[in-house]
Amino acid sequence: MIIAIKRGAAAEEIREFSAALEQREVKVHFSEGTIQTVLGLVGDTTAIDAEALQAHHLVEKVMRVQEPYKRANRLFHPEDSRIDVPLPEGGARSIGAGSLGIIAGPCSVESREQIVEVAEAVKNAGAGFLRGGAFKPRTSPYSFQGMGTGGLDLLVEAKKATGLPIVSELMAINQLEVFDEVDIIQIGARNMQNFNLLKELGRCKKPILLKRGYSCTVTELLMAAEYVMAGGSDRIILCERGIRTFDTYTRNTLDLSAVPFLKRQSHLPVIVDPSHGTGLSWMVPSMAKAAIAAGADGIILEVHNNPEKALCDGEQSITPPVFASLMKDLKKYAEIEGKKL
Amino acid sequence: MIIAIKRGAAAEEIREFSAALEQREVKVHFSEGTIQTVLGLVGDTTAIDAEALQAHHLVEKVMRVQEPYKRANRLFHPEDSRIDVPLPEGGARSIGAGSLGIIAGPCSVESREQIVEVAEAVKNAGAGFLRGGAFKPRTSPYSFQGMGTGGLDLLVEAKKATGLPIVSELMAINQLEVFDEVDIIQIGARNMQNFNLLKELGRCKKPILLKRGYSCTVTELLMAAEYVMAGGSDRIILCERGIRTFDTYTRNTLDLSAVPFLKRQSHLPVIVDPSHGTGLSWMVPSMAKAAIAAGADGIILEVHNNPEKALCDGEQSITPPVFASLMKDLKKYAEIEGKKL
Amino acid sequence: MIIAIKRGAAAEEIREFSAALEQREVKVHFSEGTIQTVLGLVGDTTAIDAEALQAHHLVEKVMRVQEPYKRANRLFHPEDSRIDVPLPEGGARSIGAGSLGIIAGPCSVESREQIVEVAEAVKNAGAGFLRGGAFKPRTSPYSFQGMGTGGLDLLVEAKKATGLPIVSELMAINQLEVFDEVDIIQIGARNMQNFNLLKELGRCKKPILLKRGYSCTVTELLMAAEYVMAGGSDRIILCERGIRTFDTYTRNTLDLSAVPFLKRQSHLPVIVDPSHGTGLSWMVPSMAKAAIAAGADGIILEVHNNPEKALCDGEQSITPPVFASLMKDLKKYAEIEGKKL
Amino acid sequence: MIIAIKRGAAAEEIREFSAALEQREVKVHFSEGTIQTVLGLVGDTTAIDAEALQAHHLVEKVMRVQEPYKRANRLFHPEDSRIDVPLPEGGARSIGAGSLGIIAGPCSVESREQIVEVAEAVKNAGAGFLRGGAFKPRTSPYSFQGMGTGGLDLLVEAKKATGLPIVSELMAINQLEVFDEVDIIQIGARNMQNFNLLKELGRCKKPILLKRGYSCTVTELLMAAEYVMAGGSDRIILCERGIRTFDTYTRNTLDLSAVPFLKRQSHLPVIVDPSHGTGLSWMVPSMAKAAIAAGADGIILEVHNNPEKALCDGEQSITPPVFASLMKDLKKYAEIEGKKL
Repeated sequence: MIIAIKRGAAAEEIREFSAALEQREVKVHFSEGTIQTVLGLVGDTTAIDAEALQAHHLVEKVMRVQEPYKRANRLFHPEDSRIDVPLPEGGARSIGAGSLGIIAGPCSVESREQIVEVAEAVKNAGAGFLRGGAFKPRTSPYSFQGMGTGGLDLLVEAKKATGLPIVSELMAINQLEVFDEVDIIQIGARNMQNFNLLKELGRCKKPILLKRGYSCTVTELLMAAEYVMAGGSDRIILCERGIRTFDTYTRNTLDLSAVPFLKRQSHLPVIVDPSHGTGLSWMVPSMAKAAIAAGADGIILEVHNNPEKALCDGEQSITPPVFASLMKDLKKYAEIEGKKL
Repeated sequence: MIIAIKRGAAAEEIREFSAALEQREVKVHFSEGTIQTVLGLVGDTTAIDAEALQAHHLVEKVMRVQEPYKRANRLFHPEDSRIDVPLPEGGARSIGAGSLGIIAGPCSVESREQIVEVAEAVKNAGAGFLRGGAFKPRTSPYSFQGMGTGGLDLLVEAKKATGLPIVSELMAINQLEVFDEVDIIQIGARNMQNFNLLKELGRCKKPILLKRGYSCTVTELLMAAEYVMAGGSDRIILCERGIRTFDTYTRNTLDLSAVPFLKRQSHLPVIVDPSHGTGLSWMVPSMAKAAIAAGADGIILEVHNNPEKALCDGEQSITPPVFASLMKDLKKYAEIEGKKL
Repeated sequence: MIIAIKRGAAAEEIREFSAALEQREVKVHFSEGTIQTVLGLVGDTTAIDAEALQAHHLVEKVMRVQEPYKRANRLFHPEDSRIDVPLPEGGARSIGAGSLGIIAGPCSVESREQIVEVAEAVKNAGAGFLRGGAFKPRTSPYSFQGMGTGGLDLLVEAKKATGLPIVSELMAINQLEVFDEVDIIQIGARNMQNFNLLKELGRCKKPILLKRGYSCTVTELLMAAEYVMAGGSDRIILCERGIRTFDTYTRNTLDLSAVPFLKRQSHLPVIVDPSHGTGLSWMVPSMAKAAIAAGADGIILEVHNNPEKALCDGEQSITPPVFASLMKDLKKYAEIEGKKL
Repeated sequence: MIIAIKRGAAAEEIREFSAALEQREVKVHFSEGTIQTVLGLVGDTTAIDAEALQAHHLVEKVMRVQEPYKRANRLFHPEDSRIDVPLPEGGARSIGAGSLGIIAGPCSVESREQIVEVAEAVKNAGAGFLRGGAFKPRTSPYSFQGMGTGGLDLLVEAKKATGLPIVSELMAINQLEVFDEVDIIQIGARNMQNFNLLKELGRCKKPILLKRGYSCTVTELLMAAEYVMAGGSDRIILCERGIRTFDTYTRNTLDLSAVPFLKRQSHLPVIVDPSHGTGLSWMVPSMAKAAIAAGADGIILEVHNNPEKALCDGEQSITPPVFASLMKDLKKYAEIEGKKL
């Protein structure tokens, strides 16, 4: 961390400030220029609040050189992390480090018939995981809020019928007890900065699929992962799912540059959600392919056997035949990129 | 709600679609044009999901005429709501309906000395309420997270010493039990769409100060209020505190147009936070005055007796003398606007 | 265009309003509901200003069903447009309708040596066009503003040496006279809404590469194309080059969803600029591949033989060897997507 | 400017880099730390391109301490600038340095009757300047583009009838010849980064009212002013008129924090346009008052005698009676703020 001191500051004051900083377990390198003094902080500066320093009357500007995250940082963990999910028949299905994870299924679990039918369809097309929501975050209190625990039960039935590991969203920590059979816990965009929830999740042993908040920076996403990892967990999958911008032709703006950036900064796997990221079913195949081309470790997308009757997000769900056709293309892309699918 | 049907749709299909809509307790007004058919939905459409309708193959576009919120809507509650907080000596202090609420205090409670000193200073300058954080949402797990319950205890001591009602942020519903003495519960920007928390708060009898998420639309803020109100509560104070935009010279962009807009759409009081809204202490007085000029029902701002040593948000805290000087101007502004201060 | 009339409006007033609308060469379809009257405007509504209508005291909301652009609209020109640029040796090089256009070269022309060396390198790697700036839009009046006419002369020399058609940016209409040998005229992001310039360009017979303004919607980009096309030209190439968002880890946020969207709405070719779209050279290959996967008709990117000494945009330029390696991947992607490269 | 060098860089290479920098008329202060070397550039760094430096393989990060603008910078011109516009009867009307400029009139000049009627109404209510557009930047080539030169003639007639100095927008430099009688030349938001136009305006002797581009940072606005000032002019009025954000309940988001920020960074007067800044006539009075409270040196707003029939922007125009009532409030606000109106 580099601190530029205001011009004309008294040497005595700078020394006092510098001494105060050294009490925070960093070493201050002191460079007195003819015009401006610059302090260089050496050591672990992740616990030093750059914005707080900015309040000091001596400080002109603060520049962070070191990233504010440690456990999620590739610098300290150069090789790719891989998330392995055990399969009922033995072995495991992986995401990251060369393995593409394809997670497909309906936005919401609506009935046994629906979830089993979709599960079989996506399995046959080559999906590796089944997704389905039981607890749904909805903008309106008057909208369908998901089937709750009953929905999870049906999802588990579909898992048993197909052998696909399952992914479902957890909205509050007290729901954890009913997530026993869920293989990957999804944390939604609106909860990405629910810091109390993130802290609690650090004690959870299951893999966490952490979606980027729709107005959070990539650095904030890595800091959210850091919250969970600081609690002890290290099985995190990052997910780009679109950010909020001035243009509204898509529900969100899918920020695919986040894929190479996150993979450079962190060792964690990065997947993409082209369904929520665009909100338009006809655009999903193009953006799913683009995600793989950009280097993603997988995709999560919505497949519904009857999008028009979906209780939630029908406008962004593709049908099983469209999904099957997309999977054929993705296999070719995976081959070029040297990934297992 | 108005639904434009795609050109060339079969009359039979439109009739079926229309019949299905009527099962949702609305009446469908059917207007067959020479080029395009338009359906008008009459009745309470708040429970109808416009985006889901968009998934139907017959639908060209959906236009919502009625607002998606009811209890927060001024249409059904034309007079201003006023939030009354009882005072220890009897009577009440009010926010809304002509009464300005001035809420001041440090970002975080740091010590008995600090909170009592600031409390007395802001009281003498004319503040109506004392703010102070005990549980702090921080972007980094390595930053100071607040004093927790101990901080609340100190805040209550300052309340007893000064008679000022207190405002503090609640981050998770299980903290509610220690908020007994807190007069107004603040819900922070990052929890504005924590729907599980909002639902639980509906059962709470205390006033809720609901901050706008830094990337939430004003309609989403009103929908968040609706979540709480749907649970039974009706004592909500809305708070504009800056939104995230492309420009970063201020921490957030204070969106003062939200004040007249929210007050036109809703009967709830609207206050402004110029401290978080700008992140720059020297800008706080200008923006506090602008907030009152724009029609706000109050302000909440950070005052610290020693901003340079603040453990949190020092760069946006003003000192007691600056606050006292600001209060003199605000009194003149209140008079012009015909508000009580 | 559909106009919802305010509840309680007098029938007589609505009739007058309706009659006034009919004088603008549209037919008004009149649907009187029990609760709300809705007017449907049938005919060419591109010349009707929806925002102006919103000012009328009878109007609740206005919903545009028809797109505001005509000549750029795929609805009236279902087949893909193809831009052919004649080659000196006869024949033409194409962009669009199945042909990928690869445009590569330095941000600025800096010297004969530099531009010829880069031109030969990109030609050998398989580029179809050479780019190079002579007039540079710079945020600071104190930055290098390009070599001007002398730069164009050198670019033309490189064209003669390699046979590659050339692309260069025009900043003001009075520069047109020196663009005689330039094959494709680029209009930069900051001039996308310079309406006077767009009108003048309508009379120009050369193909126009129109870059999306960094804060313009895709609809505004199509309206800018419409300005040029309304003047008579129809040889426009649209270019996505990143939009301004809250996150700043990339210089701009490359909005790849714009590719499938623009291609669905318009018949014009769509290319992508991953260099300006990210501002980071190491990210360019990933995003170039993602652009082709998303369905783009080509890419334009910056290649410099010595990025560290570039007078402009060195941080986003790739070197000739990186470009050559990228081209090998792009050929495989083109094959999967069924495009000629 | 401070440059952090990458860890592990060779001393010899750093010395060469440093020597190269010194050839650009700055002195390099060399601070070799145990972990990281930091270079401090002392002197006029406005001509050094921070982004270009970022391309160098030795560079970790670049931090600009000095602002990139000089002539617009308050640092080198501590006292407020005041723009004086001569009046026909002798004397001058001022904006800045304690004088509030109130500029009112219709979006477009539509007829002699209209412009004279509005001019007299705003004069009687206390406006200091008359605005009216003759050349209109419109998103659609099919919308009304203004009356052109004929409109300017009518505006000059209104000036003669009322004695009010006039303000009108110039869209291209070749229009300058017909702006002889215009007192203040307005440059619209979409032309704020039309650098060729800005350079030419530097030679113009009239005051320039420079509107902030709707997606330009405040620093970019100051750099645009710098372009004009680098050409020799120093009579610039900056204007905040709303920025583009994710929320669309207002046409733009009026960024009132820009007022105190620009006034701190620059000596130039700063005014606010609440009409374009909100797009909603009923919101204009609140935001006009807030602008003055925030410290603005004036406002520019749209007044139309018949907003419903306005050919342009009727939805954001207030009527003469609303304007007269607003002026009464503004006089009280001006008094509190110690400004002349």
